Amino acid sequence: MSHSTSDLPYGRVWNFAAGPSTLPVSVLEEVQRDLLNYKGHGMSIMEMSHRSKEYGKIIGDAEATLRRILNVPDNYSVLFMQGGGTGEFAAAYLNLFASKAVSEKQRRLGRQLSCDYLVTGKWSKGGLKEVARLGGKPNAVFDGVVSNTEAEPSVSYGSLPPVSSWKLGRPEETAFVYYCENETIHGVEMPSDLVLDAVDPSVPVICDMSSNMLSRPVDISRFGAIIAGAQKNMGPAGVTLVIVRKDLLERDDSDKEAIQRLPSVLDWRYFDKAGSMPHTPPTFSIYVCGLVFKWAEEQGGLEVLQKLREARAKLVYNMIDAHPDFFHGPVDKRYRSAMNIVFNLPTPELEAQFLADAAKRNIIQLKGHRSLGGIRVSLYNAMPLEGAIEFVAFMKDFYNEHHN
Amino acid sequence: MSHSTSDLPYGRVWNFAAGPSTLPVSVLEEVQRDLLNYKGHGMSIMEMSHRSKEYGKIIGDAEATLRRILNVPDNYSVLFMQGGGTGEFAAAYLNLFASKAVSEKQRRLGRQLSCDYLVTGKWSKGGLKEVARLGGKPNAVFDGVVSNTEAEPSVSYGSLPPVSSWKLGRPEETAFVYYCENETIHGVEMPSDLVLDAVDPSVPVICDMSSNMLSRPVDISRFGAIIAGAQKNMGPAGVTLVIVRKDLLERDDSDKEAIQRLPSVLDWRYFDKAGSMPHTPPTFSIYVCGLVFKWAEEQGGLEVLQKLREARAKLVYNMIDAHPDFFHGPVDKRYRSAMNIVFNLPTPELEAQFLADAAKRNIIQLKGHRSLGGIRVSLYNAMPLEGAIEFVAFMKDFYNEHHN
Repeated sequence: MSHSTSDLPYGRVWNFAAGPSTLPVSVLEEVQRDLLNYKGHGMSIMEMSHRSKEYGKIIGDAEATLRRILNVPDNYSVLFMQGGGTGEFAAAYLNLFASKAVSEKQRRLGRQLSCDYLVTGKWSKGGLKEVARLGGKPNAVFDGVVSNTEAEPSVSYGSLPPVSSWKLGRPEETAFVYYCENETIHGVEMPSDLVLDAVDPSVPVICDMSSNMLSRPVDISRFGAIIAGAQKNMGPAGVTLVIVRKDLLERDDSDKEAIQRLPSVLDWRYFDKAGSMPHTPPTFSIYVCGLVFKWAEEQGGLEVLQKLREARAKLVYNMIDAHPDFFHGPVDKRYRSAMNIVFNLPTPELEAQFLADAAKRNIIQLKGHRSLGGIRVSLYNAMPLEGAIEFVAFMKDFYNEHHN
Repeated sequence: MSHSTSDLPYGRVWNFAAGPSTLPVSVLEEVQRDLLNYKGHGMSIMEMSHRSKEYGKIIGDAEATLRRILNVPDNYSVLFMQGGGTGEFAAAYLNLFASKAVSEKQRRLGRQLSCDYLVTGKWSKGGLKEVARLGGKPNAVFDGVVSNTEAEPSVSYGSLPPVSSWKLGRPEETAFVYYCENETIHGVEMPSDLVLDAVDPSVPVICDMSSNMLSRPVDISRFGAIIAGAQKNMGPAGVTLVIVRKDLLERDDSDKEAIQRLPSVLDWRYFDKAGSMPHTPPTFSIYVCGLVFKWAEEQGGLEVLQKLREARAKLVYNMIDAHPDFFHGPVDKRYRSAMNIVFNLPTPELEAQFLADAAKRNIIQLKGHRSLGGIRVSLYNAMPLEGAIEFVAFMKDFYNEHHN
């Protein structure tokens, strides 16, 4: 092998999993060091009461660091919750419909408001389905695109239809607009502004940023709420971040029916009032997130992480584009994800060979999602540029060995 | 000081927190050892895809070990969920009311069934309140006791009223009976059979065992469902265990209203059908729980853990009973908790002194819950007998120094 990764510390591999996914080595080292005795307190964070002064500082610091690096405005609350994207699919809908804003708008309209969903792949579709399950009126602003030019018409989520064709609801009939900024399975990532510019400013935009959070600066002030599972760019699975504009937490307590539908564990206001600790939070996982936030700040913040993200992705996409007969990237170039890059090889046999040969070079977790097949390489914040370089070197070698 | 704990490994302390709480040192050592490279896989468990073969084995082993040590019958499902007790307060109600059993019973009755709550303290009251919030009809079978003999009448949850006075609903009008077997704040623990023998066998019993799970054998087959947050006897906060009789997962899909009220993230059937992984589970926390289950099995299983639990508690209660003028234990002796022992000293000043002196001997987290004050010492599975011995030695020294 021309490229060896045998010198990775601790016998580690290049882990390109889509999530849970690789974390900064320095964060893991700190977690390991303090595991049986956190900074002289004589116990693991896992054993520490969430009501202790020490833990109050840990969760407080995590929030403060996040607010700094993301530049979160004061009129937004930051909540650490549980339940992942699936939990927030329901929570977003249930909280908005328990809000004073939606309640009053509904009274003016005289009937139930609808919710606009931009369906770009599995996760936005998941949000839509949950609202339908819960008795809401989700409206698909669009649901993928039927591709005319691509070789594989089964890939219907490889692009976005033009904004002019989006079927957004009328503002006075719409509770919120929902989209998922990066679809991990389909490798589609959208610029925030594309959506934000298209939506009437009176309608709050709810964004699922689970898989590209902290990978670039975001203008929080343009969103109603941002939801994100931690397990891509932030930390271990089991923490869900919610950033929500405070006015959306106001309630019309006479609207009992909407509040009755909202369990406490999904209630943003319940968490907001108690500093994310109305009950025992996932203490250890929040601690690790806090270390990742600190790491992100030490890297130079989101501007630097954005440069790294673009550099990693460019390496792989350049290789794909250099050999389009061999590496087939199905996604519209305008909406290619910098987080999850999907492509196919000429045959399923070659794809299997690709995975096997990569594993021999300690490059792993490249199999496409079971619903789609092919290859997927995930390049989250904690993947060093060096990892992308190793991967592309492998692509090149594999190409040289197997193309005709 | 006559007793020194300075030789505890890793500079650790005796941590008597009520939860999150102490974990077995051998478990923490294994977690620490494998933190950057789990068994040669080249990554941390935190970084491992939940869809990987390795992780499938981790969660599968965790469930298998738990089933062995708890002797879980085959007609019960074991689920790893998120959201803690607060989540399950809602989930228990919402799932039962979406079940075929409740749906059919409700049709026969022609109106909404009520839910029986045995209120022994804050946590059972929390379950009752959540059902009221969600539009259910909770019935307090009793709500604490008005104490005539105790010096402090504010302690109204220090006992249980006699079974003959319980106001259980009629079986045909009742969806389920709910109780919390151990109240961490009030230090009250009930024998399962007291409840199970009082309830008509046609009515499923739902039990919150968050704080005494795995501390003694349980006849699972007598329960409808058991719910338990992990952070006392099982592992880190952020995992919630549900053990539910499979027939209660059957649905009457025509009862759309009940299903509409149940978000996916709280849906027991959704988790059951996907082996607890319909979405990304809290992977690392479940892994730690699995290690704790294995540790419990290696100790000799629940019979041995029960002996240890009784031995630890006996040491402390004996000291309380030996000096009732100094250590005032407010709980009815029949229902004293072996997990959380609460008591008061003659004055608040002495209580403050007790906490300060204990800390000097590396004995910490003894402050009673903020709602109650006083002293609370929590003695979960992972607290070695030696820890209880150290604590009682301190009690004795403190008594000798301060009693008149």
